[in-house]
Amino acid sequence: MLEIETLRDTAQRARAAATVLATLGTDVRDAILFDLSERLRARAGAVLEANASDVADAESSGMEEAMIDRLRLTPERLSGIASDVRRIVDLPDPVGEEFDARILPNGLRLSRRRVPLGVIGVIYESRPNVTIDVSALCLKSGNAVILRGGKEARRSNESLARLVQDALSAHGVTPDAVQMVHDPDRRRIGEMVRMRGEIDLIVPRGGATLIEYVRENAQVPVVAGGLGVCHTYVHGDADLAMALDIVDNAKTRRPSVCNTLDTVLVHVSVAGSFLPQLARRWAGPPVEIRGCDRTIDILRENNAPGPWRPAEPDDFGREFLALRAAVKVVDSLPEAIEHIRKYGSGHSEAIVTDGYQAATDFVNAIDAAAVYVNASTGFTDGAEFGLGAEIGISTQKFHARGPLGLRELTSYKWVGLGTGQIRP
Amino acid sequence: MLEIETLRDTAQRARAAATVLATLGTDVRDAILFDLSERLRARAGAVLEANASDVADAESSGMEEAMIDRLRLTPERLSGIASDVRRIVDLPDPVGEEFDARILPNGLRLSRRRVPLGVIGVIYESRPNVTIDVSALCLKSGNAVILRGGKEARRSNESLARLVQDALSAHGVTPDAVQMVHDPDRRRIGEMVRMRGEIDLIVPRGGATLIEYVRENAQVPVVAGGLGVCHTYVHGDADLAMALDIVDNAKTRRPSVCNTLDTVLVHVSVAGSFLPQLARRWAGPPVEIRGCDRTIDILRENNAPGPWRPAEPDDFGREFLALRAAVKVVDSLPEAIEHIRKYGSGHSEAIVTDGYQAATDFVNAIDAAAVYVNASTGFTDGAEFGLGAEIGISTQKFHARGPLGLRELTSYKWVGLGTGQIRP
Repeated sequence: MLEIETLRDTAQRARAAATVLATLGTDVRDAILFDLSERLRARAGAVLEANASDVADAESSGMEEAMIDRLRLTPERLSGIASDVRRIVDLPDPVGEEFDARILPNGLRLSRRRVPLGVIGVIYESRPNVTIDVSALCLKSGNAVILRGGKEARRSNESLARLVQDALSAHGVTPDAVQMVHDPDRRRIGEMVRMRGEIDLIVPRGGATLIEYVRENAQVPVVAGGLGVCHTYVHGDADLAMALDIVDNAKTRRPSVCNTLDTVLVHVSVAGSFLPQLARRWAGPPVEIRGCDRTIDILRENNAPGPWRPAEPDDFGREFLALRAAVKVVDSLPEAIEHIRKYGSGHSEAIVTDGYQAATDFVNAIDAAAVYVNASTGFTDGAEFGLGAEIGISTQKFHARGPLGLRELTSYKWVGLGTGQIRP
Repeated sequence: MLEIETLRDTAQRARAAATVLATLGTDVRDAILFDLSERLRARAGAVLEANASDVADAESSGMEEAMIDRLRLTPERLSGIASDVRRIVDLPDPVGEEFDARILPNGLRLSRRRVPLGVIGVIYESRPNVTIDVSALCLKSGNAVILRGGKEARRSNESLARLVQDALSAHGVTPDAVQMVHDPDRRRIGEMVRMRGEIDLIVPRGGATLIEYVRENAQVPVVAGGLGVCHTYVHGDADLAMALDIVDNAKTRRPSVCNTLDTVLVHVSVAGSFLPQLARRWAGPPVEIRGCDRTIDILRENNAPGPWRPAEPDDFGREFLALRAAVKVVDSLPEAIEHIRKYGSGHSEAIVTDGYQAATDFVNAIDAAAVYVNASTGFTDGAEFGLGAEIGISTQKFHARGPLGLRELTSYKWVGLGTGQIRP
């Protein structure tokens, strides 16, 4: 849609739209999203047709099947996207919430009021559902958004973005609130991330290469997830049945996502009992164990079923994104903590223990977006955390950490209501 | 102290120190700061001597007197710095505060716990008091800090940083928690702001050139103030005596700071009455009025005392930092809002009105760090807002807006306390 315009024009129109959105009532924003969810069902045919063209091109270009699957929309997937939008409608509005309100000694009533960030730039790859997800989250939180999707999903994204723009127009709101940028050669990513003052936040959603590129080149603030190298430590006093369930769940529930377990640490006092049980559990899916020397010795002595093999030096600190886990025997809780400090990526870490002191020490010592006692790292997710939906999971400390929900797409302004106060 | 070491070594030692600080109890951090305040008094002589050498060099190099005054320490100023540290001791500890705590439907107890950001880099210019201010704020909030001060204050800063390091050592904490970087040629600023992953936050404190350089080159997140182009709008129904006090206070209390009024907007219905009164009030200090055509006409017709003259085109949107103000007559509240949107810098904006609807509309429409009704913009300040102390005032929306107190030097981690929960 915007091929002949400059990105600067797009951003200026987004800014004007953001000013409108910032003062729209919750009712109008919710009505637009409700309307969008209806349009996703009513106009599914057109979207699926556009998607079929993208998929056909991808197939004839020889794209691998896993990638094509990410690109493909089906009636069921589209219906799921529409339901997700409905769920976002039902979330509480973060905008306008006031907090830290108080009356100062001089009578000035001071509070912080949540306001939208303004203009958010989202850079993503082939999944067309992101077009709707991020549009809905941004509109719900009163932000304008500039979408830069992957070129292989161009027709799908255009057709979805048009539904959003139609829903905006139907409620008298400028369609500039959600704009799509086409970028056959990735040049515009570099431009977008440098538009300081014009774009307020960049959210890259995609692989490590994209995120690294954005982080290296951005002058605009960025919130992004990164590697999720997640550990679960089984302490000497753990309930081993619980530990087995937690470790297995953290690894096998969805191996391709960032909150998945990569390394199991096991206290030496229970390693002889726990590791053969784990090998038996993981003979099934199967999950390949890459063990430290002591792990391999225990598995060998117990004739534990495979697959297992000695760990390579870089298996610790690696995000496998596959049915594979590094396993290490440690002599103490401090050694486990030290290992996680060295190899963890600050995403999600867990301990399984029945010890109050051990649990407390672990939670205090580990510096990660999410730290768990006796629970699966798989819970690190906006919906699970009760945030309703998320635009990503941040492993950075600045602005927001962990799942990025609606509140994390806002800022605040200080509001001072006085009766003539002047400062001495 | 660190001339032969690389900045990377400094940052690595700061990271190790940050890990220690993050788990220190409030009592230890407070004891270090209390000790520091005592040392500032007990060892004032050595600090003043080091400062005298810096001042002597500055004088012989022909530095202008205003700059030398910023550099100069006196027994009174040093005592004031020590008192400021004592006040920081008395502030509540932001670290460890838990919020959003709840038990999820599956029984997992989830909360957000405030944690230090980690390693903070502060880049500042000639005022040596910043060395103590930022060290105290960072230590109180559990952060390690790397200080890069101006070379003209080198001996003063070294002598002050040594007091901090001595206080750390006296309580068994590594002096790497507060390190000073020397940088005769500014080269290290460029290095510091690119140390992503090694430094967690950069706070530039200084003039517009420094802040712009940092923003342009930073890969590390930055929190900085910027221009404060502040407006006060006198609506048609304002109590004019109140308006006069508020406008005068906002302009004349401290003309050199960023929350100071730059432009007065006056509704046409009260301009004929208000502007001559303002000119009489400002004949005293004196404050130069740079008026729009209608303002000048009114002042001329009323034989109002000077100094006043027609505004230059760029007087609107200018941060004067002097006893000078732009004045414009507007026809309506929407025109005032539009003017502020166009020319404001998002710092502090005020309306004087007795109208409920006008006050509400102004607060809703204006997007700035602080928005006031019937109060002076001079209140935008950490101490006035009850934050106790501030490391700066942010005009950005990301992470923190307005005065940056202790809480704004923290992040949080999600803590999930379970009893064996796994994710379906």
